[in-house]
Amino acid sequence: MEQKKYRIGILGATGYTGAEILRLMARHPLFELAFASSERLAGQPLTAEFPKLTGLPVGETRFIGLQDALSVPVDGIFSCLPHATAAEQLLPFVDKGEAVIVDLSADFRLDSAELYEKWYCKHPRPELLAKSVYGLCELYRDQVKGCRLIGNPGCYPTSILLPLLPLLRAGRLVEPRGIIADSKSGTSGAGKKATETTHFINVHDDFSAYKVADCHRHLSEIGEQLSKAAGTEASILFTPHLLPVARGILSTIYADLKPGAGEAEIRTCLKAQYDGEPFVTLLDEGFPKLGWVRMTNRCVFGLKVAAGKLVVVSVIDNLTKGASGQAMQNMNIALGVEETLGLL
Amino acid sequence: MEQKKYRIGILGATGYTGAEILRLMARHPLFELAFASSERLAGQPLTAEFPKLTGLPVGETRFIGLQDALSVPVDGIFSCLPHATAAEQLLPFVDKGEAVIVDLSADFRLDSAELYEKWYCKHPRPELLAKSVYGLCELYRDQVKGCRLIGNPGCYPTSILLPLLPLLRAGRLVEPRGIIADSKSGTSGAGKKATETTHFINVHDDFSAYKVADCHRHLSEIGEQLSKAAGTEASILFTPHLLPVARGILSTIYADLKPGAGEAEIRTCLKAQYDGEPFVTLLDEGFPKLGWVRMTNRCVFGLKVAAGKLVVVSVIDNLTKGASGQAMQNMNIALGVEETLGLL
Amino acid sequence: MEQKKYRIGILGATGYTGAEILRLMARHPLFELAFASSERLAGQPLTAEFPKLTGLPVGETRFIGLQDALSVPVDGIFSCLPHATAAEQLLPFVDKGEAVIVDLSADFRLDSAELYEKWYCKHPRPELLAKSVYGLCELYRDQVKGCRLIGNPGCYPTSILLPLLPLLRAGRLVEPRGIIADSKSGTSGAGKKATETTHFINVHDDFSAYKVADCHRHLSEIGEQLSKAAGTEASILFTPHLLPVARGILSTIYADLKPGAGEAEIRTCLKAQYDGEPFVTLLDEGFPKLGWVRMTNRCVFGLKVAAGKLVVVSVIDNLTKGASGQAMQNMNIALGVEETLGLL
Amino acid sequence: MEQKKYRIGILGATGYTGAEILRLMARHPLFELAFASSERLAGQPLTAEFPKLTGLPVGETRFIGLQDALSVPVDGIFSCLPHATAAEQLLPFVDKGEAVIVDLSADFRLDSAELYEKWYCKHPRPELLAKSVYGLCELYRDQVKGCRLIGNPGCYPTSILLPLLPLLRAGRLVEPRGIIADSKSGTSGAGKKATETTHFINVHDDFSAYKVADCHRHLSEIGEQLSKAAGTEASILFTPHLLPVARGILSTIYADLKPGAGEAEIRTCLKAQYDGEPFVTLLDEGFPKLGWVRMTNRCVFGLKVAAGKLVVVSVIDNLTKGASGQAMQNMNIALGVEETLGLL
Repeated sequence: MEQKKYRIGILGATGYTGAEILRLMARHPLFELAFASSERLAGQPLTAEFPKLTGLPVGETRFIGLQDALSVPVDGIFSCLPHATAAEQLLPFVDKGEAVIVDLSADFRLDSAELYEKWYCKHPRPELLAKSVYGLCELYRDQVKGCRLIGNPGCYPTSILLPLLPLLRAGRLVEPRGIIADSKSGTSGAGKKATETTHFINVHDDFSAYKVADCHRHLSEIGEQLSKAAGTEASILFTPHLLPVARGILSTIYADLKPGAGEAEIRTCLKAQYDGEPFVTLLDEGFPKLGWVRMTNRCVFGLKVAAGKLVVVSVIDNLTKGASGQAMQNMNIALGVEETLGLL
Repeated sequence: MEQKKYRIGILGATGYTGAEILRLMARHPLFELAFASSERLAGQPLTAEFPKLTGLPVGETRFIGLQDALSVPVDGIFSCLPHATAAEQLLPFVDKGEAVIVDLSADFRLDSAELYEKWYCKHPRPELLAKSVYGLCELYRDQVKGCRLIGNPGCYPTSILLPLLPLLRAGRLVEPRGIIADSKSGTSGAGKKATETTHFINVHDDFSAYKVADCHRHLSEIGEQLSKAAGTEASILFTPHLLPVARGILSTIYADLKPGAGEAEIRTCLKAQYDGEPFVTLLDEGFPKLGWVRMTNRCVFGLKVAAGKLVVVSVIDNLTKGASGQAMQNMNIALGVEETLGLL
Repeated sequence: MEQKKYRIGILGATGYTGAEILRLMARHPLFELAFASSERLAGQPLTAEFPKLTGLPVGETRFIGLQDALSVPVDGIFSCLPHATAAEQLLPFVDKGEAVIVDLSADFRLDSAELYEKWYCKHPRPELLAKSVYGLCELYRDQVKGCRLIGNPGCYPTSILLPLLPLLRAGRLVEPRGIIADSKSGTSGAGKKATETTHFINVHDDFSAYKVADCHRHLSEIGEQLSKAAGTEASILFTPHLLPVARGILSTIYADLKPGAGEAEIRTCLKAQYDGEPFVTLLDEGFPKLGWVRMTNRCVFGLKVAAGKLVVVSVIDNLTKGASGQAMQNMNIALGVEETLGLL
Repeated sequence: MEQKKYRIGILGATGYTGAEILRLMARHPLFELAFASSERLAGQPLTAEFPKLTGLPVGETRFIGLQDALSVPVDGIFSCLPHATAAEQLLPFVDKGEAVIVDLSADFRLDSAELYEKWYCKHPRPELLAKSVYGLCELYRDQVKGCRLIGNPGCYPTSILLPLLPLLRAGRLVEPRGIIADSKSGTSGAGKKATETTHFINVHDDFSAYKVADCHRHLSEIGEQLSKAAGTEASILFTPHLLPVARGILSTIYADLKPGAGEAEIRTCLKAQYDGEPFVTLLDEGFPKLGWVRMTNRCVFGLKVAAGKLVVVSVIDNLTKGASGQAMQNMNIALGVEETLGLL
């Protein structure tokens, strides 16, 4: 007896996260592509946007417009639309209520509509924020199960929150104030649009910090999650940097220890959380390289205590665990299939 | 007694070749910057376009508009304007007749106005083509001396013509038909404008051919020069490729030997041409790497005969010997100062 | 009913091709790892060589020594041992006769023992050359079926022979003499051992030709195959170059057309050969980028006729279609399972 | 009247810092090369180690052995020998007392022989530590003047100490404890020897932390200088990272503000220190990119206060301001010539 196949649609399938969803779909034994939407390219084959698919059967699939997508019956939808746009164009799909929706934009990540408005814009349907779940899989798995609207975490937040949230939840291990996250991201994080910033000559053989301290939108999400875990207002200084690599984030995280806490308790806490998790690994010793997790759905981190501070080095692939891979993991959980399908 | 300083202007100083001229000017003991023009940035300091100059005195120099530039007295002008534009906006400066003009666009490289029209557009003042000199310094030095309008060679042509022209002039060494130039260029050759083609993700860790065979504008210039040197219609198949490096061109060139010709005669011919030249080196053995000539005004090449063919591997920095360095060399020659000033 | 699983061993599993076999094995539904051998690391887990496997179940698998490997029952063996070594250490496995052996070294690629001795060393068991098949899958599929000893093609040869062999077999299309292959390879082709040549600073942002014309061992294999296809002595000038990228080969190939031949006939010939092939694609227009085939088992090429010559631009991933992927494809064919398993 | 030329020797001229000294010497109007030493290559031309010098006059200069170097009369010596080796092999030159010696190893950077022994080995002549000066030019200029033995600062320390020392000397601005330096260095910092760590495939498109917290030798030098400036025991957590770029260090530095201190006072303090300095620039706004200072002797930094902490982003070229450029600057100061010669 053949197993039920789930029909999956992708909204806004022309960017890097859309391409990564397509790559992962190809390996997923239970998901089949119901549609890939693009207003700009409706009617054209995927090869029009992804020439590397030339000669492959999937390359012949044609983009459809958003309106047409609405009438395609689906079990799940990945929304790769830009934030704000996402919320608005997604609403008809949300209202239709048929499918599990995993939104890769920032529109359903926050609990607070004010916070959203401060960092992005006025939220088109703030009441949905209460219904949506923050899809950091390993830490919100129970809430994701059965949920119909999942805000898929940002890439930087995923690399920072996976190591920190269990420690803050534990209460007695690290100070929730004065945390520093010095993060370095590959250039795919800046999106597919050609800009001065992503011009080869400006990135290659170069390196820079950007949106230093208090400037990056992901702060809203990181701060809300840290505070929620700590049960008190947390504070974090976040400095993103642009690496001359294609994919991947490495975050070096510094936190002050609470009095009496040490490396052993920290390891015990994190092992209790992550032992047995297929996608999160705490190293017993040493630190991971960015390349270890390229094109995987893994988050790997190492840690050390020195001079009264905890240092964590954490790596993910920004397009996989930091976006489309975690989205797939969320979809698997929400639809009730084996969580690792398409991701190993 | 202090030596006379020459006042030098740069038209269109905002692109990569303009920046390279500025870099070389800073080392030139006899040239001083009279103006740097930009319509878009007139009135703003150089740092507005080149933030890396922040904190340096030269960074405070202000761009001026083209009209204002016309009234600044100068001894020499480097024109870094785009082709066609160049010819048109340069005309008032040419007509003024005051300065030696080295034009880095394609507008004064060709002898033939028809050829120019075929590959670019209608030439605005075709009669000037006869007055201008093709500034491939080592091979046209006598014509450049005292000339007032110099068409500075293209980057690919420089890497290809320096090894080939002496052999074709010699007549009996290589066949002028069926030549192949398989050239690979760093991304700065594609200019400063951010495009899909030059997006970091599309270049980094990647490689591709473009404008394969009969498509690249530099063919007009290469073909005209080869034919002139051979005294008969030459033919060349030219395949440019885009390297994930910032600067530099490596051309691998294949030519059929004429009957009776061998490696020894070829070496003798090229040594006779280039021995003593400060910027052109034929290796006695082996082949150069691209990095050898980075940020230098050198062309280095190695050669070998095998299977009845000559193979040459030639490297230049596309922005220096392939553009602004050779332009400076031309200016030195035309103004009658020591040819290597600013370039060693 | 569960399908039969095939037990597969890997000899010399510590290099790049071994790692790539492991990556592909993980996706293959019918192959299971019987052993991974390494004399140096016998007894240690795979993580000792591949730290990125830390935290993954496969990382705990232990290397075994060659002697122990001999007693493990297997259906298939991938040999990733270096050439010459390979032939010698493989002999006991060949003599045992139990498994299909795909050898990734050069030891079973040639028909001629003299040619092998000229480019490598004295062959330890020349009579096996006649029994082994050259595993260029799409062109030797029938011979690979049921064969027990397969010489897996080299990376450069794969990128060059797939487009050329059908044309030479056809006889009337391209001249078998005077062919030029200007190939550019990523640095993984130089192996895992740290050398001056592969030092980051010597490769990054750089580019060079090496073993120019008549010097690279792959010439033996290319020449033998071209001549066999042409039915006459072919000649080729082969210039490999080292790209500052991790993986991939792009070969730009030039051949003289036979009188009367044109682009249309050439396309017809190649389409007849490759239409329907899952891993080889001739583009209807344009040329592929190296990145299109990264980490895939595909060979994609485009072509054009100009100035009496055929120009082909062909790309493969040197570690996949150029090594371990093609090896897997050969193993699939030889064992009689679906040819694309593990490779899509 | 011609100006006096100074005769300069280079000990251990085969590594990256030696090559960089040679590059800078070529531009220095008052320095001439007296010798370049190498035990391994004595008698061979510079091209044997630096093939890119082929065809240039300097390439013909021959390395000499250490013993021969001793008898060459010189005004100044750059020692590019490895630490420990340096101290020992330098002693005869120190004892000879003829020349100003700038040592680029760690051997004369520290005041404390114990600290040296802890991080390196037993110091062969500890009494010299008191006679040598720490050559962080802008902050020890007066001591360098007239000094005969200068310990040239390490690359990481230079990028970290230039912004921090004035603030710590001021006393009331930043806390001397709990400082964090998250530094990222190009691969040339790892030296010229080919190792697993510097293998192209292990660096390219990758990124990693190493010697995390309390492990890197430069800590000894950073800590000693910070404490001396603060007049109390300072503490710093230092995390170096390896960038896939050739040259350059970017340090992101975090320090707690002292009560009452703010961004304005910090800027005032640093401007008072560095206004008018040709090689150190504090940006009025924004942050520098690594590429801004490539192949220059500059240190450029930007800063911001947020969440009670100071964040500084500082860039240098590790081989120029972080090694050979600063060494040249020290030599200029010590010999009493214009400090910027050869460096602009």
